[in-house]
Amino acid sequence: MAILVVGSVAYDTVETPFGRAERVLGGSASFFAVAAAFFSPVNLVGVVGSDFGEEQLRAFAGRPIDLEGLERMQGKTFHWQGKYSWDLNSRDTICTELNVFEFFKPKIPARYRGSEVVFLGNIDPVLQREVLDQVQAPRIVACDTMNFWIHGKAEELRRTLAKVQVLLVNDAEARELSGEWNLVKAARAIRALGPHTVVVKKGEHGVLMFHGEDCFAAPAYPLENVFDPTGAGDTFAGGFLGYLAGCPRADDEALRRAIVMGSTLASFSVEAFSLDRLLALSRAEIDARYRLFKRLTSFETI
Amino acid sequence: MAILVVGSVAYDTVETPFGRAERVLGGSASFFAVAAAFFSPVNLVGVVGSDFGEEQLRAFAGRPIDLEGLERMQGKTFHWQGKYSWDLNSRDTICTELNVFEFFKPKIPARYRGSEVVFLGNIDPVLQREVLDQVQAPRIVACDTMNFWIHGKAEELRRTLAKVQVLLVNDAEARELSGEWNLVKAARAIRALGPHTVVVKKGEHGVLMFHGEDCFAAPAYPLENVFDPTGAGDTFAGGFLGYLAGCPRADDEALRRAIVMGSTLASFSVEAFSLDRLLALSRAEIDARYRLFKRLTSFETI
Repeated sequence: MAILVVGSVAYDTVETPFGRAERVLGGSASFFAVAAAFFSPVNLVGVVGSDFGEEQLRAFAGRPIDLEGLERMQGKTFHWQGKYSWDLNSRDTICTELNVFEFFKPKIPARYRGSEVVFLGNIDPVLQREVLDQVQAPRIVACDTMNFWIHGKAEELRRTLAKVQVLLVNDAEARELSGEWNLVKAARAIRALGPHTVVVKKGEHGVLMFHGEDCFAAPAYPLENVFDPTGAGDTFAGGFLGYLAGCPRADDEALRRAIVMGSTLASFSVEAFSLDRLLALSRAEIDARYRLFKRLTSFETI
Repeated sequence: MAILVVGSVAYDTVETPFGRAERVLGGSASFFAVAAAFFSPVNLVGVVGSDFGEEQLRAFAGRPIDLEGLERMQGKTFHWQGKYSWDLNSRDTICTELNVFEFFKPKIPARYRGSEVVFLGNIDPVLQREVLDQVQAPRIVACDTMNFWIHGKAEELRRTLAKVQVLLVNDAEARELSGEWNLVKAARAIRALGPHTVVVKKGEHGVLMFHGEDCFAAPAYPLENVFDPTGAGDTFAGGFLGYLAGCPRADDEALRRAIVMGSTLASFSVEAFSLDRLLALSRAEIDARYRLFKRLTSFETI
């Protein structure tokens, strides 16, 4: 079942305590697409500038990622530059050059319109709704957002959330969106806005998923060497939705397996700069780490 | 199998966003003993002043908690006063009156000396070793500590850790003790000091246990109403070691079940002031929440 993703395709310049990567491939749609494509075909909608080269496009080649929706505009590609703290737990944005992304108006190619799963990456909630208006009858609509929209376009975001089944946010965003500190209460308040499923990402502390009255907790994989956290959240979303799109039903059990699959993909993503680890990854490695997650969390009944 | 616990028995004055409790029963040994006694007999070693009343002692009555080792000294009982922030995520200590606890020299009654499990609560590491010198051949020695000893008595703490099998610390303490930010590396460095098992408590984010090369992650129970976090860590330790003492072997599987049992007890403890919720708790309620933990973390293999 094909997944439509709309989001950024970017150049990232990243500094971590372990090194520096200059103008490497980044952006939410890039991480999402490569992770999701391990499980389902992906239709990518985004925009790049005339400086975006063949070398970057090669990342998507040989994978079920359709690039008809990747628009090329005259100008420069979105560029983000960030520097992580010594413990990787915080980062400073050095610069954000929106470039062609500033004028991004998602245009959905005709053959994408039947996509049954849609992921609305973190863009203006007005644009997110315009994307939804161009697709026919998606089975699952999932959405990401950020503080910038929560504060700056609260009413527009609410109108978008009313059309969304799954919201993926981090814990701080869940709290700000709901006005509730307690995450159980925050998830309930968010579900009242539309999404039946709220996925709260807590970084190194894992994920909480609220689905109706059901709650599922998954840890992050305890890695000895985290190299670069950039893109971990989008990789998680890609693994989660990609796996879910391949399931016959998005029921409780499928959602739980999808959360672990998202966590599995994210645990690889942070092992190297950019998409480097994801691009070198095999399905056998993915399945092996999923089984390690099973062992990591298993305990007997009493 | 009897557990010997040495730690504080105290009066706590606690302020949370939800109310205030004045001079109620607290202290690490109190929370530990009541939690552990659901599973195993407990031998308590501590000290109280002449102001410690029959009413407080009633908390331990009717439970398999031996109080021969609870010394009464002329003077006042240890008193701690704290105030939590609006989100319960931080607290200020308003005052710490050590009183009789300042002169505490643990004396182990003769019939405690055969205890097979020992929990060395958070006291001076020199005293922790003096306790160990007075017991015969414990099967499991577990220990808690804090930043005060990690910085102030580093060498003494190392000598104590060499005699300990299980160390329970929070994430900040694990990092300070090891000098490693990454918790996988921190646990390995701590295991090199003696303990074969390192339990890292992360509060609302759950627990990571490292046992040899094995790693186990358990979430905290997502509660809608946390009332007072005081004593949660000691309650966790009590549930963990109490359950473990009742297992024929402290193998991987028993340790995992014990971690979940500790988390279960802690999730009740924070629902009310002092030991109030623990004292009203039934074994049936404990087992029901343990089963909820199972559901909270379950997912299918792929």
